[in-house]
Amino acid sequence: MRDLGKRGKLETEAGQCLNKSLVIKQLDVTQEDSVKKCLEEIPDQKVDILVNNAGIGQVGPIESISMEDAKKVFETNFFAVMRLIKMVLPAMKKRGSGHIVVISSVLGLQGIIFNDVYVASKFAIEGFCESLAVQLLKFNIFISLIEPGPVNTEFEMKLMEEVSRSDFPGTDPETVRYFKELYLPSAHEIFVTLGQTPDAVAKATVKVIGMDQPVFRKQTNPLYTPLTALKYADNTGNLSVRTFYNLQFNYGSIFHFSLNLLRCITCNCFRRRVMPV
Amino acid sequence: MRDLGKRGKLETEAGQCLNKSLVIKQLDVTQEDSVKKCLEEIPDQKVDILVNNAGIGQVGPIESISMEDAKKVFETNFFAVMRLIKMVLPAMKKRGSGHIVVISSVLGLQGIIFNDVYVASKFAIEGFCESLAVQLLKFNIFISLIEPGPVNTEFEMKLMEEVSRSDFPGTDPETVRYFKELYLPSAHEIFVTLGQTPDAVAKATVKVIGMDQPVFRKQTNPLYTPLTALKYADNTGNLSVRTFYNLQFNYGSIFHFSLNLLRCITCNCFRRRVMPV
Repeated sequence: MRDLGKRGKLETEAGQCLNKSLVIKQLDVTQEDSVKKCLEEIPDQKVDILVNNAGIGQVGPIESISMEDAKKVFETNFFAVMRLIKMVLPAMKKRGSGHIVVISSVLGLQGIIFNDVYVASKFAIEGFCESLAVQLLKFNIFISLIEPGPVNTEFEMKLMEEVSRSDFPGTDPETVRYFKELYLPSAHEIFVTLGQTPDAVAKATVKVIGMDQPVFRKQTNPLYTPLTALKYADNTGNLSVRTFYNLQFNYGSIFHFSLNLLRCITCNCFRRRVMPV
Repeated sequence: MRDLGKRGKLETEAGQCLNKSLVIKQLDVTQEDSVKKCLEEIPDQKVDILVNNAGIGQVGPIESISMEDAKKVFETNFFAVMRLIKMVLPAMKKRGSGHIVVISSVLGLQGIIFNDVYVASKFAIEGFCESLAVQLLKFNIFISLIEPGPVNTEFEMKLMEEVSRSDFPGTDPETVRYFKELYLPSAHEIFVTLGQTPDAVAKATVKVIGMDQPVFRKQTNPLYTPLTALKYADNTGNLSVRTFYNLQFNYGSIFHFSLNLLRCITCNCFRRRVMPV
């Protein structure tokens, strides 16, 4: 973890495993030296499975996002993953085995309004892995992209709260109004309805790691899949852009109704019965 | 253009239009000041249509690509496009009209072996535009992604020649061998068989610009479409990864044969008859 000062919770959860099967190391994935140092401390520098989980969010109209902020998102969400993969790859190739897991997002498959930069960084890592996976198969190395939908974390709630208070300097009032009055409420509703726990994503990841032939892609949230499939139905992309446009700007009530319907048929008690986790 | 010293050819082509309907300006899209200066010189700073065409290539095993080189690819292929869009957007929104065209690539839709970083940069711009297009529709601003397959340019030939001479420091011999003995010949064959002229891409772009309701996506090369559709047939992504793997590593002769077949049925004389350009 980047800040070892925050390891308390993890240590408590780890219990007896701590410093036996679980060792906590300092690591800032955006710093070349930090990555090198961390890898050097691993016995024989042998990494069987690399899970790239570090990521940062970015929400808001692009007029208010500086080029510098956009580059920060890419530093963690894309370049850090590339750096880690470059570092573990030579030894994995030499051994002829390894598994690289990347926590991507459904937003790596389908764009969404006001998430332009974050979406771009997740698309980037999807394209990178899609290209690399073909070569690595020759070395018996697997890549898997885990694609969660919305995940209810403290971090996510804080981000949403922060942006609801921001006034997005440099952005025209109309755009800010769409963001605050249309996007934020619908995003909140999506999180409440479709949101998963971090635990569910971790379990899906463990399942993929345990596969003999790991899948390349794994969406953790079946409720989200139809949304990502939309753009493949029409290769001009118009269907997808216009559907998302209508949902956001014209048919808010249909959107609201369908989410409520989803919430109803996937309520916790029902979900527990049909899909025990 | 970045280097005004190279404007000779363009001036000749422009003929009578020069300095009337066509004015050539200096512009380095990776430099904030250069973009500002160029936009300020435009009468009323009114940009009706922005065509983002600048792009750089990157081919080779990732072990030999430094983080710095990877970032350079993103500077031009992604961040520069974001910068230009951010700069023209406020005035387009105020006027309630505008068209943003981005020369993307089929490699923004489908990854390909040994093109990891380039693919990532093109995926990034696809995801960015897919997100932004929904919002901009509300302002009557259109975004269009032009997605060429291989384009036979001097630049492309030079790049291929350069990489065939490189020895890719930091990369194991087996990977270099796959690159030189399998990838390069098949890439060459794809260019010869499916390659388009820059002129064909320009004509497809002009057509999209002329549409009343511009399409969001436009692949310029129908021969390439089946390859980009493969991954949507199986959402684990395994079908796509394994098919490209088999084509590259196991069934080279089938690959070779299908390309020859394609070349035959799409030969110039035939193509001229059925698809006059």
